[in-house]
Amino acid sequence: MPDDASRDALSTAVRTSLERSDLDPVHALVGEEHPADLALLLEELEPDQAWQVLLLLPVDIQAEVFGYLDAEAQTELARHAKRPRLAAIVTAMNADERADLYNKLTEAQREALMPGLAQAEREDIRRLASYPKDTAGSIMTSDYATLPAEISVGEALHRLRREAPDKETIYRAYVVDDERRLIGSVRLQELILAEPATPIDRVMERNVLAVKVDEDQEVVARKVARYDMLALPVVDADDRIIGIVTHDDAMDVLQEEATEDFHKVGTIGKLEQNVRDAGISLLYRKRVAWLVLLVFGNLFSGAGIAFYEDTIAAFVGLVFFLPLLIASGGNAGAQAATLMVRALATGEVVLRDWGRMLGRELLVAGALGATMAVAVSAIGVVRGGPEIAVVVALTMVLVVIVGSLVGMSLPFLLRRLNMDPATASAPLVTSIADVAGVVIYFAIATRILLPGG
Amino acid sequence: MPDDASRDALSTAVRTSLERSDLDPVHALVGEEHPADLALLLEELEPDQAWQVLLLLPVDIQAEVFGYLDAEAQTELARHAKRPRLAAIVTAMNADERADLYNKLTEAQREALMPGLAQAEREDIRRLASYPKDTAGSIMTSDYATLPAEISVGEALHRLRREAPDKETIYRAYVVDDERRLIGSVRLQELILAEPATPIDRVMERNVLAVKVDEDQEVVARKVARYDMLALPVVDADDRIIGIVTHDDAMDVLQEEATEDFHKVGTIGKLEQNVRDAGISLLYRKRVAWLVLLVFGNLFSGAGIAFYEDTIAAFVGLVFFLPLLIASGGNAGAQAATLMVRALATGEVVLRDWGRMLGRELLVAGALGATMAVAVSAIGVVRGGPEIAVVVALTMVLVVIVGSLVGMSLPFLLRRLNMDPATASAPLVTSIADVAGVVIYFAIATRILLPGG
Repeated sequence: MPDDASRDALSTAVRTSLERSDLDPVHALVGEEHPADLALLLEELEPDQAWQVLLLLPVDIQAEVFGYLDAEAQTELARHAKRPRLAAIVTAMNADERADLYNKLTEAQREALMPGLAQAEREDIRRLASYPKDTAGSIMTSDYATLPAEISVGEALHRLRREAPDKETIYRAYVVDDERRLIGSVRLQELILAEPATPIDRVMERNVLAVKVDEDQEVVARKVARYDMLALPVVDADDRIIGIVTHDDAMDVLQEEATEDFHKVGTIGKLEQNVRDAGISLLYRKRVAWLVLLVFGNLFSGAGIAFYEDTIAAFVGLVFFLPLLIASGGNAGAQAATLMVRALATGEVVLRDWGRMLGRELLVAGALGATMAVAVSAIGVVRGGPEIAVVVALTMVLVVIVGSLVGMSLPFLLRRLNMDPATASAPLVTSIADVAGVVIYFAIATRILLPGG
Repeated sequence: MPDDASRDALSTAVRTSLERSDLDPVHALVGEEHPADLALLLEELEPDQAWQVLLLLPVDIQAEVFGYLDAEAQTELARHAKRPRLAAIVTAMNADERADLYNKLTEAQREALMPGLAQAEREDIRRLASYPKDTAGSIMTSDYATLPAEISVGEALHRLRREAPDKETIYRAYVVDDERRLIGSVRLQELILAEPATPIDRVMERNVLAVKVDEDQEVVARKVARYDMLALPVVDADDRIIGIVTHDDAMDVLQEEATEDFHKVGTIGKLEQNVRDAGISLLYRKRVAWLVLLVFGNLFSGAGIAFYEDTIAAFVGLVFFLPLLIASGGNAGAQAATLMVRALATGEVVLRDWGRMLGRELLVAGALGATMAVAVSAIGVVRGGPEIAVVVALTMVLVVIVGSLVGMSLPFLLRRLNMDPATASAPLVTSIADVAGVVIYFAIATRILLPGG
């Protein structure tokens, strides 16, 4: 990963040479770069410049670069492409990447592209592109090798040699029966180690983990991670193998899901685009809903305050501690929610752990509240005397405990209702804790400070 | 990944059979399970029961299961192990996993273990265990194959066949010169495709990406993800290959780093343990620091309120809107911070993007503030008349803009100061926005409502 400075230098050098129509230095500059870095470079150039650079590369590298481009750059470059050129690149692309590209093209672009492709490729693209978003089918590739069970190791190697140039991922081949039902798998490494005459079913592993094509992509990715797999086979309803999900795509899914949860906990809706290039109206729409909702949520705090207006009028100094006390309950609650949202997402904690977690949270929150009460009661004495200090300290312990228990339990409740635990965002927990804080504070204050209150 | 119910059923069945000292059904039950799932099962059993189960399995599976166990279970089982048994398992474990295990053992346990191992293994463990935490060295493995440049493809395959049983990861072999300096790499797949007489340096790729042994593990993991690699070679200061980081370990690192950032944004310190098993005192320590710090931060809000006590005393109804207005600024700021913290962590956004992000944030926040002002001013009219409504609406627009700009900029500032952007937690941003909110609200109120104020 070149740092920003060297990336800038490369981009400037390439641009300068392109403007002088001097392609030799560009060729030298881009020849050594990784396709992923070339994609970043192309994203910064105008489409016609990008094509000038792309055409300096062999077609398999062009295909790789195309696979690394973001959605916007892909469709932009596709729009500016000569048809046969684009068809050649698409033919050379990985099966899953070209299906993704196909899904991003307009109907007109698709119609322009498809006639340039061979029949087999057209069918492969249409098939892979047809699976619903966020399922195993939508992230799988058809670049895998299968072997029949009855052949020998030597014959298997011979077949793989014949197929390998087309298959990106033959470190493992899948053994299937006559109806392509998955019955085993074998590593390339085991094949080259075994005697050529050995039957395949003597060296293959039988217990092959596989997922159904309609399984959720996050579940699939977690399996790949959990079992340290290079690829996980995908089967249809009849257990016939129809694709594999590779480790790199699983990693991307886990990263996306982490980002989505991260945003969700920050009350931001799912962004289909990267943050850097997201437009103003998209960001507005993804942020406004929760903000407005929380305004109305916070009205309950206001109502709590209105209810105790007499107490406030009599002891206006109480307001000094108000932001501090309600924020503390919210902060402790947000911590507890954060811990549980992430632990539920990674599977570290499951629904039935709630009781144990609740007991522990009560003790932790009690200790936290007591510590913060000590900190704040000193200030209470200074600003309002011992009575105010007692009110403030008592409130602190209670709001931290209430906030923490709400924050800790809400993600479990959401999961129980089949909703996303990440909906238990810090601001939502904070808003609930705020209302509780206002009521607890002024109820205690009224009781202790107002005679007969 | 078996669901909770089937996991429970397995665990119960195994326990029941163990209590009856009936090992045959246990053997049948565990024989089909993946080592990762067996590890989960063992973590729930008593150490002596766990050993009974482990010993039903072949030693290479024992080693795999051991690698999947969490730190606590590993050291616990090691403590209850017969020495030669543990030595056999450690010998069969992956190089990186046994180095991690070694790092978790007590000095006494290490001394008991090491004499049972062969000289080469002892040295390998000591070497891998010696690299500082969170560096490439600490996550790399020594299970990789090297080839000299001058041999033929046929000879290379012959060598790999000889070495393969020991090397987990020979889908790619690294080509080195006489001093083990990395000069190329070749995929197993290319070797079986090429003519046996071809020299290795004709089929190898020359531009091998590698990282230095002291590189940060997150940078290493992001490279593996970015370039879709199965493994990334690690070199010493003289460019000699000393290990590789495999895709599965890179994935684990990215997951850990995501969890760490997630927690950090929720003001929780780095947990070395998983959340489910973390103790009360650990959780207390990881949470208390920021909570107490934020108490003192919130005193500034209190001070702001104290400064405007006259305005409040004159218009006590203003307090109704206080939680709502300051929470809104904080919520918008937390959203902006969340977006930037994650984008900086994944590399989507870099330091120099700040200016562009700032301009966009100003527009988005302006629109958000205006929307929320409309929502809140209606309530302002009802509760306090048009003058109060104007004060509340104006404040809303300003606090949302100020909160958003602070939230958006703080992660950049922290990165600029070489601190972790994730320190810009929602509660920190909220606290800053609270102070700004109090001052803005009462300053506007004093100006508009108090004649000559």
